Amino acid sequence: MKLYSYFRSSAAYRVRIALALKGLDYEYASIQIAKGKQFEPEYAAVNPQHLVPVLEDERKLLYQSLAIIQYLDETYPEPRILPIDRFERNRVRSLALIIACEIHPLNNLRVLKYLTDVLKVSDEQKNAWYHHWVTTGFTALEHRLATEPQTGRFCHGDKPGFADISLVPQVANARRFKVDLTPFPTIVRIDAACNELEAFKKAAPQVQPDAE
Amino acid sequence: MKLYSYFRSSAAYRVRIALALKGLDYEYASIQIAKGKQFEPEYAAVNPQHLVPVLEDERKLLYQSLAIIQYLDETYPEPRILPIDRFERNRVRSLALIIACEIHPLNNLRVLKYLTDVLKVSDEQKNAWYHHWVTTGFTALEHRLATEPQTGRFCHGDKPGFADISLVPQVANARRFKVDLTPFPTIVRIDAACNELEAFKKAAPQVQPDAE
Repeated sequence: MKLYSYFRSSAAYRVRIALALKGLDYEYASIQIAKGKQFEPEYAAVNPQHLVPVLEDERKLLYQSLAIIQYLDETYPEPRILPIDRFERNRVRSLALIIACEIHPLNNLRVLKYLTDVLKVSDEQKNAWYHHWVTTGFTALEHRLATEPQTGRFCHGDKPGFADISLVPQVANARRFKVDLTPFPTIVRIDAACNELEAFKKAAPQVQPDAE
Repeated sequence: MKLYSYFRSSAAYRVRIALALKGLDYEYASIQIAKGKQFEPEYAAVNPQHLVPVLEDERKLLYQSLAIIQYLDETYPEPRILPIDRFERNRVRSLALIIACEIHPLNNLRVLKYLTDVLKVSDEQKNAWYHHWVTTGFTALEHRLATEPQTGRFCHGDKPGFADISLVPQVANARRFKVDLTPFPTIVRIDAACNELEAFKKAAPQVQPDAE
């Protein structure tokens, strides 16, 4: 298995956590996004969308972090990342999608670049934008995690899974942008519980081969 | 079953298509987003995130359109919305996520409102933003659909499924914002094929009880 990754990409970080939780070994192929390497022809042939991550397994290319993680769970079922019960599956998927559809897309590098390069917003406005979408999404997430009885040591019960895999990279990003996390005690608690685990440590940006 | 919906919400539109493809009946509960009805306490109790859609099934509340659709497919498996093969599942999920994670979140009402109300961009800049993200996402999608051998009459083979359910509402939105679709012949062809089907017709915004 080969993972096209970049240490700072949260989407790649999600897949690294899933691979580590499953105990799967893989070759790490670094695509240096900050240097524009995703636009070079060699990588365009791997992913015409110029994004990471891409996972290569059984000589096939797999796209989109949440789809890749579900592929991994369907292919290497132990330990499970998604619960078996269909209502529980909806819960963890919907928690993950709050992050993947409502926070992360608004705050990734290409969007921030559009704000500064095309719309000519100030750094202050860019940071306010970033904080606004993290805070909006985390408020929703905190409310659900704090009030729903299925929350345990992790987002869903006492084992890490699909929602935690999405949460931890987003919290790391929020910290990098100095978002105040004190209104989100459940999120902070779960993030800390995750980061005690070897799988999450191994997947962290700062320990990747291409970390700067 | 009860669907909290709004005629113009693309996320609700996706779930309506899935319900229609499965031949499932449901009560239609209209939440008039344009009038701010999602913020009223009655609906906040249903969805603290103030978003549609929410599906109620077996007295349980289900969130997030893509998670709801997968719930429906796991609960009412015929006709299938996702393929059985795990590589094929990755394909349709990754196509759907291009739309759900990379186009739709950037162009929904609350984001456009932030651009105009907070960042004070002009109407022209707002439209350029909208067109930019649709065109970027559709370029990636068109490339995959036009070059991957699994594409058939629909996004994946000759039956409509998960990717088509995400595509059709996004195309409808793009048309509403007058995005030029001539660079995307495969997308236009598949959208037309979908819209010939009763399930897609029944789910369309203009025939919903709350259409204006």
